[in-house]
Amino acid sequence: MFQRFLPIHDWARRYDRDAFTGDLIAAVIVTIMLIPQSLAYALLAGLPPEVGLYASIAPLVIYMFLGSSMTLAVGPVAVASLMTASAVGELAATGTPEYIGAAILLALISGAMLMGMGFARLGFLANFLSHPVISGFITASAVIIGVGQLKNLLGIPVEGHTLIGQLSSLGAHLGQINFWTLAIGVATIVFLVWARKRLAGVLARAGLSVKLAGSLSKAAPVLAVVVSIGVVYVFGLEQAGVAIVGDIPRGLPAPTLPGFDAALWQSLALPALLIGVVGYVETISVAQTLAAKRRERIDPDQKLIALGAANVGSAVSGGFPVTGGFSRSVVNFDAGARTPAAGAMTAVGIALATLFLTPALYLLPKATLGATIIVAVLSLIDLGAIRRTWAYSTTDFLAMAATIIVTLGFGVELGIATGVLLSLLLFLNRTARPHVAIVGRVPGTEHFRNIRRHEVETVPGVLSIRVDESLYFPNARFLEDTINDAVSLNPEIRDVVLMCPAVNFIDASALESLELISQRLGDAGIRLHLSEVKGPVMDRLQRTDFLQHLSGQVFLSQYQAVKSLSAGNCPGAEGMQNPVSRCTESRSQTQDTVSEL
Amino acid sequence: MFQRFLPIHDWARRYDRDAFTGDLIAAVIVTIMLIPQSLAYALLAGLPPEVGLYASIAPLVIYMFLGSSMTLAVGPVAVASLMTASAVGELAATGTPEYIGAAILLALISGAMLMGMGFARLGFLANFLSHPVISGFITASAVIIGVGQLKNLLGIPVEGHTLIGQLSSLGAHLGQINFWTLAIGVATIVFLVWARKRLAGVLARAGLSVKLAGSLSKAAPVLAVVVSIGVVYVFGLEQAGVAIVGDIPRGLPAPTLPGFDAALWQSLALPALLIGVVGYVETISVAQTLAAKRRERIDPDQKLIALGAANVGSAVSGGFPVTGGFSRSVVNFDAGARTPAAGAMTAVGIALATLFLTPALYLLPKATLGATIIVAVLSLIDLGAIRRTWAYSTTDFLAMAATIIVTLGFGVELGIATGVLLSLLLFLNRTARPHVAIVGRVPGTEHFRNIRRHEVETVPGVLSIRVDESLYFPNARFLEDTINDAVSLNPEIRDVVLMCPAVNFIDASALESLELISQRLGDAGIRLHLSEVKGPVMDRLQRTDFLQHLSGQVFLSQYQAVKSLSAGNCPGAEGMQNPVSRCTESRSQTQDTVSEL
Repeated sequence: MFQRFLPIHDWARRYDRDAFTGDLIAAVIVTIMLIPQSLAYALLAGLPPEVGLYASIAPLVIYMFLGSSMTLAVGPVAVASLMTASAVGELAATGTPEYIGAAILLALISGAMLMGMGFARLGFLANFLSHPVISGFITASAVIIGVGQLKNLLGIPVEGHTLIGQLSSLGAHLGQINFWTLAIGVATIVFLVWARKRLAGVLARAGLSVKLAGSLSKAAPVLAVVVSIGVVYVFGLEQAGVAIVGDIPRGLPAPTLPGFDAALWQSLALPALLIGVVGYVETISVAQTLAAKRRERIDPDQKLIALGAANVGSAVSGGFPVTGGFSRSVVNFDAGARTPAAGAMTAVGIALATLFLTPALYLLPKATLGATIIVAVLSLIDLGAIRRTWAYSTTDFLAMAATIIVTLGFGVELGIATGVLLSLLLFLNRTARPHVAIVGRVPGTEHFRNIRRHEVETVPGVLSIRVDESLYFPNARFLEDTINDAVSLNPEIRDVVLMCPAVNFIDASALESLELISQRLGDAGIRLHLSEVKGPVMDRLQRTDFLQHLSGQVFLSQYQAVKSLSAGNCPGAEGMQNPVSRCTESRSQTQDTVSEL
Repeated sequence: MFQRFLPIHDWARRYDRDAFTGDLIAAVIVTIMLIPQSLAYALLAGLPPEVGLYASIAPLVIYMFLGSSMTLAVGPVAVASLMTASAVGELAATGTPEYIGAAILLALISGAMLMGMGFARLGFLANFLSHPVISGFITASAVIIGVGQLKNLLGIPVEGHTLIGQLSSLGAHLGQINFWTLAIGVATIVFLVWARKRLAGVLARAGLSVKLAGSLSKAAPVLAVVVSIGVVYVFGLEQAGVAIVGDIPRGLPAPTLPGFDAALWQSLALPALLIGVVGYVETISVAQTLAAKRRERIDPDQKLIALGAANVGSAVSGGFPVTGGFSRSVVNFDAGARTPAAGAMTAVGIALATLFLTPALYLLPKATLGATIIVAVLSLIDLGAIRRTWAYSTTDFLAMAATIIVTLGFGVELGIATGVLLSLLLFLNRTARPHVAIVGRVPGTEHFRNIRRHEVETVPGVLSIRVDESLYFPNARFLEDTINDAVSLNPEIRDVVLMCPAVNFIDASALESLELISQRLGDAGIRLHLSEVKGPVMDRLQRTDFLQHLSGQVFLSQYQAVKSLSAGNCPGAEGMQNPVSRCTESRSQTQDTVSEL
């Protein structure tokens, strides 16, 4: 029973020396990469640097036991850090113990929610975040994060978690720029951008294997950290007003339990849910990408439990919300990680750093961390996705644009909520007014298509209508109107065939409408037939007396319907191979009917 | 331009003596019926009786000018009156000028909203109230109304707009029952129930035409009013503690304009919207039923404007929210009303009653009005609909049951909101996990059906999957999983055909999923094909580069797909009449694959 929730059973038995070597190498590389990231994202969340390190220890170990994805690396990420800052910033002043406590509690609630959703097998709920909404949200968040880091890059205060708030705050303090800070920041950005594009090539030409060169190049931020510490030390920039990280408490976090302030829990519930779900969607896309490469299967509910437990672990050990990060997971994967044990080894690495390395980080300029964040989030801004969505679908683009605008203008929580609600409403609106086609037979086949798009044959007196949507309450009345209109325009019609290949269910409202339609058509001497009704829909109709009252029949296929009905309308057609083509009316005539619809 | 919004132009030109006679007779009958109803529903809404009369004058005249339905009669109705009492009861004490003012303002806001929706052509929004939700809501409202009227029937206070509140209030005062009041109430109920079932028959046997007898029998409440006034007068029951209507101000209402208290407007906005939409749905179902009998067309947006204006008119003349009532419209129709002029004549009748009749109503016992209401709402309780919905669809029943329970337990506004939201969520949940079928050819046809339901033929190496839902974000990942699973269970597969007759659109999220699926299948040496892609869906796909990257082809029909693909897999089949049946694998084999899905 519990084995299902502990995938470690599966891989631990097969663990061997090869796997160990792969995991170890990957762990070293990821550790080096994670240290500046952890510090930077803690800074972004408005938290002391050690909180970022704490969030990179326990979650990784817990994930080793529960994670079903072999190479996913969890830890602090940019978007979750911004959402944390936004949620907690409303409740406490940055840097206060209340602020830190609220951030930790946020991880706990978020983790508990994810675990609950996982045990209740509610992983599918995350699917209601559509790709355009997620993509728009991440792009907008990246912009907010990037602009927010100008604070560390310019050495001036930039407050607020919306673009408008940030820009006005930025404008008010432009005179106070610290040029030493700016120089360090700009130099770091230039170096990191260069390293991202060229460093792997340089290392490869220096004789390293392409793969190792690629992985090592991800450690460029560490080089930036070391060099910038050196620069601050040599030139005594601390006295010149360059903000530094300062004292980081040494030692591992002591397990803590957050307080039970009901009002605080309540005001953190919604942000916790949003952080959890957004983090989960990010995690599962990363996991799917990696799993596809190795043809592994992913269990979405298992992922929820693992990520939830990792967050609870983060909270208990004094950390803040964590997520599966894309770049670190890819580095982990490329560097040869084979099992989640690589994550545990990374945790040991970070723990060692927390124990022994923190004094060396005293002089680390915040500008370097800000530059690291800016370069990281630059890659999250996906203008191509905006362009592609615009080209493909107006409704998807609307949802995406609304998400971006509301996120930038009113904050992350309202932004994501707007996106989800708007995409659902737009979908409902679309199904409320479905596409309807009058169909005819494609000559020489038994296939029926829209008479406005294909050269098809129809039979006089028989109107074949295909409604391209499930029949349910928002479009039930639309169906009545459509059929009434189509029939009232053509007095010759004796039979209406409702072709149902696209009708995936018929709810009680639509059933009443169908009964009304059948009855009204019957009053006018017209029979209503159905064709190509799907099994599940038919099962349900058979539970009612609708089929007994139906004036016409239910045909297996549209071809059989037209064949059978044309036999009646067109004497002499019975028993023929192609009865339909024998009594075809001109196409243009039928088209007139349709264009009125 | 404005003619569109003034249907009176259409029928006024054709107005003749016949129409006038029909309208006049109908008006007299409806007037007699409306007087006790107007008083009773004002009582139900917690308003003085004259407000009910006012609400039956101006709205009818306005509706004459704007109404597109020839015989619909608007005025106070039971459900809207209950909703008014519920909304206003939270803001002011019953009977105070503030209470009356808020009820009038409610009609104004509701009317303005309906008019706005009509001009914006948003009539389709009302479709989001599904039949089961509306039906459950009306049933629950009827129960609350009926129990609430025990107050007038027993002569004890029954407070609250939820069943629970009412029952506890009832229990606390059971000792104070006034038996004279109870006797009048019970006698009236017995008489009205008898009249509903038998009076028409008695009158017909007395020599009246069946139609007239039917219409006249609807005046039974007037008889009850007259007799009970007489009883109170003769026995001096006013002194015995029987509650009477008392003084009703004589004269017509003076036009008023409600105040502009922003806070009041804000707290009435949501109830106004709900009353408006529920009233609109009631009105349009009545109108559709009547229009179908005379083969008239209905313009839903025109109806919104007319009903909205009628409500604004009600407010300006001191009335409360009005709706098209079912029973009075049917009486109007059956009595021979031909045009909305019948409504205007009814308005004149009510105005005359307001001017001259009110002193005669001084001794009218409230118990009679309560009994009228109880008998009227008894017919609104539709247990058959609950049973039918239960038999037909679990999800529809869930939405209906939730609406009933929440309405009874927590009030009308929460009840209807719960019903709408739940029915939408249940729908979304259904589309998130669509039905999927592996299909094969029905022998001797070009038709493809589910291999688990039909005896069909399939081709080895070709997997034909039909997904019975539009592909969009809630099910995009489901699609990936489904196809991956199906393919991983059958290593022989070379071609996957996604049969798309039920795919009514593909959004940006699902497009990404399809790209991923195509790519992953391609990595495994499997081609992905599409068949029976609809015109609008294809148009959209052609705007992207998806079709260029697709490893397979897009076939017009599933038959063509399998014919073409089997030619490759099954040498010798080319050019044959029935290539599919030549290389059929056993059905049981394929079924194994599917049962794993």
